[in-house]
Parts: sequence; C-alpha cells; structure tokens
Amino acid sequence: MSEAATGRVILVGGGPGDPDLLTIGGLKALRRADVVLYDHLAPLACLDEVRPGTVLIDVGKIPRGPQTTQEDINALLVEHARAGATVVRFKGGDAFVFGRGSEEWQACATAGVPVEVIPGVSSAIAGPELAGIPLTHRGLSQSFTVVSGHVGPDHPGSLVDWTALATSGGTIVILMGVANLAEICAGLIARGLPEDTPAAIVARAAMPGSQVITGTAGTLPALAAEAGVEPPALTVIGAVAGLGLLGH
Amino acid sequence: MSEAATGRVILVGGGPGDPDLLTIGGLKALRRADVVLYDHLAPLACLDEVRPGTVLIDVGKIPRGPQTTQEDINALLVEHARAGATVVRFKGGDAFVFGRGSEEWQACATAGVPVEVIPGVSSAIAGPELAGIPLTHRGLSQSFTVVSGHVGPDHPGSLVDWTALATSGGTIVILMGVANLAEICAGLIARGLPEDTPAAIVARAAMPGSQVITGTAGTLPALAAEAGVEPPALTVIGAVAGLGLLGH
Repeated sequence: MSEAATGRVILVGGGPGDPDLLTIGGLKALRRADVVLYDHLAPLACLDEVRPGTVLIDVGKIPRGPQTTQEDINALLVEHARAGATVVRFKGGDAFVFGRGSEEWQACATAGVPVEVIPGVSSAIAGPELAGIPLTHRGLSQSFTVVSGHVGPDHPGSLVDWTALATSGGTIVILMGVANLAEICAGLIARGLPEDTPAAIVARAAMPGSQVITGTAGTLPALAAEAGVEPPALTVIGAVAGLGLLGH
Repeated sequence: MSEAATGRVILVGGGPGDPDLLTIGGLKALRRADVVLYDHLAPLACLDEVRPGTVLIDVGKIPRGPQTTQEDINALLVEHARAGATVVRFKGGDAFVFGRGSEEWQACATAGVPVEVIPGVSSAIAGPELAGIPLTHRGLSQSFTVVSGHVGPDHPGSLVDWTALATSGGTIVILMGVANLAEICAGLIARGLPEDTPAAIVARAAMPGSQVITGTAGTLPALAAEAGVEPPALTVIGAVAGLGLLGH
C-alpha cells in the first residue's frame, strides 16, 4: 500500500451529551471525516456537521446482535483507515475515561495506523459540575477518585480498593453504578464510610431530562430507586455533594 | 436595582491550553461577553474571539501585587455583573477541578448574581491522554485519583490520605506537584507504593513546548529535575504510565 493511501484514526471525546460541550477540535475532526464510528452517548446532534457522503456507522448496533464487540470496532477502525479514510471514533465523555480509547489506539498502532486523540469533557467531572457539585473545594476536598461501578465491592472481578476509598476522605465519583448502587453504598459504609456522608446521583447530565437526587450514602439507593433513576447516571459521595450550589 | 440591569457570571473551563480544546459553548460565551476575567493558564488565543469593546481583565496581575486574591476576583465578578454585564470567568482546564470555580459560584450566589457553568476539558485527564497515557485501561486500572500536590504527604495541611493512595492500586494523578515531586514520590513509596511503579510527568500539556518524561515512582523525581521540568506539569503514577502508546 502506498503512503498516500493510508488514512488515520482520530479518537474524539464528544463530552457528556450537550452539543455545546464538544470541543472545537472535535467539531473540526467531524467536519473532515470520511467515516465516523459513533456510540449512543456521543452528542449525536453534532453528526449533522459532517460533509455530505461521510459514512456514519452506529457501533452500538451493527453488525451482529445488539452491540458491536470491541474487537469488531477495532477491526472497523483499522479497515477504513487502511482504505485511506480519515476515520473519527466519536464517543461520549472522554475516550480515555472508561471509554476503551486506549484499546482502540493499541489496535491501530499494532496495525500501523496513525492515531490522533482529541480529549473531551469528561462526564465524571462535568456531570457533578452541572449539578452544582465541585469535585474539589477548598477546605472540603483536595482529591477525588473516579471508579467504575460496573462491578461492585463484593465482586471478585473488582480491581478497586473499596476499603481505601471508604476511608480516604476524598470525593468519590462512581460511573456505571446504577445497577449496583445499593451494593456500592452498603459496601462503602461497611468499610468505614460514615453513613451520613452527603451523596448525589446525577442522571443524564447535560442531556434532555437530566435529574439530580441528593441524600446521603445511607439514603441515596432508596431515593434513586424511588425516582426510577436509569443509566446513564453517576454518583458523587463526599462533603462536596452537600454544598448545594444549585439550590442558591 | 431593576431586574433588567442585573448581569450574570459564566464560569468557563478553557481546557488545557490548546485553543481547539475549548468547547463550542465556551467559545460562544466569550463571543457574547461584556467582561472577561482570565487566568494565565486559559487558552489566551481564544480572547481574540471577543467582541470589540469587551473588557479583558488579567486577574493574574491586577490590581495589587503579583496575584489578584480570590476575594478580589470574587468582588470583581459580582461588581461587573451587578452593573449589568455578562461576565465570563475564563480559566485553564475545568473550573471545578482545583479551579476555585465553586468558591466563585458561592460568592455570586450570596450576592444574588445568577451563575452559569460551562465545563471544560480537564488537564488532569487530557494531559496524560495527549501523552498516550489512559487513566483507565481494561485489566490495568478501574479507578483513578486526582490529588493536589500543592502540599505533600508530610505536610500537616494535607487532607489527602496518602497511605490509601499508595496502596489502592488505582492510577494516581498529581496536579501542582512539581515543587514537591521528590517528597510525594518518596512519601508514597514509604507508604507502600512499589518503587518500580511506572510514572510519568507531563509538562505544558496541550501547549507549545510540551514535554513528557517517563520512569518509575523511584526514578521520576531525579529525571524530572535533570530535564528541568517546570510548572504547569502533572504526574501520573500507575501501570497505565507504562503503556507507552505514544512510542508506537
């Protein structure tokens, strides 16, 4: 293959859902793309910005069954780039925060496909922020930890040190933790987190129908269940969740 | 004061330095601002986008001495908004990650000034990302902790649980830690972090003259000193710092 025929892959973080939270660089990448592989959590309204003829591939649906596997996504990126295309991989949030962007980068690098990355606004930070919850605040928190709640504290597959988390005193942000919220809160409390620690769940941050529910580590799971909170949502536990800036 | 005369404050995270990493919403806010209060780490090239007549205030310099105090910044925000202006507070990174945006929000709320927040791309995530370091990676890390290195592990003013951090196994990101890098790495190792844990320091991420130095928790302080690393820089400690995606 000649050098001129080789395309490339641009990994674009689309931000938490509001098209205005896409970066200018992300928008430019979409506008020069030949192929876009997108997820459902990317700000889909931004796809209106692509050039006529751009191939849009929804990798939440194709090609077999309800979800495209990561291996299939990697293969599609490489295949289109090798055919000479500028391929944008368009995701929600930031591609490197539980976004598997690094796996895609590795797959491209192994195949000799050049990769560029355009960071995005991470939902882990922006979601709480839009709900008036700062992850750090002078005198209250000098650190925050972002964890996946995909597997909870009692799951053998969890790499997270939930005991350290429960007692660290820093802000805790849990992504993908709606299904396990009761297990996570109970597990943290059992490991030393004070039950009355302020906590909030933010659903559909920066998207239509966003929802914020506040309580404590002890009360939040029941409050969230009662309100019918569904993914995508993130949970913040720590003193900062009690600041209530939005209430002003 | 009549309702019509009341302005408002928009807290805008400008991203890590590259103008292309400003959000579309952040750019729109700059374009409709009457007054902009900016820091030195904001992407200053974006200030070219303001309307003629917009008042630009460098709050890294004025009005007394080398730095404007936070109290003075709060007062300026309130004063200009009360005079009817749309005031943009323009910062580097995200205003809510060690950015004191929440204090500014509180000051405005107390004064009855409406506040809007536009999240930005956080340097804490984007800096490592642009250096080929993902904060999470399947099988390597399911969590990351962002801490201020402004005060180190041996400082009585530190609210960070450095022991939990040293043993958690998650990725560690240290902001504002150049001056204390040797104390921080030694302190983490003394608290149980394996000395050979991969580590990297990223200076001036997304800005001209960016620099990435990789080593281990044991070797990084000497390597960074040798290379003359200066702020702004951030340090990543954890298995992900050894992935070396950029080297491909």
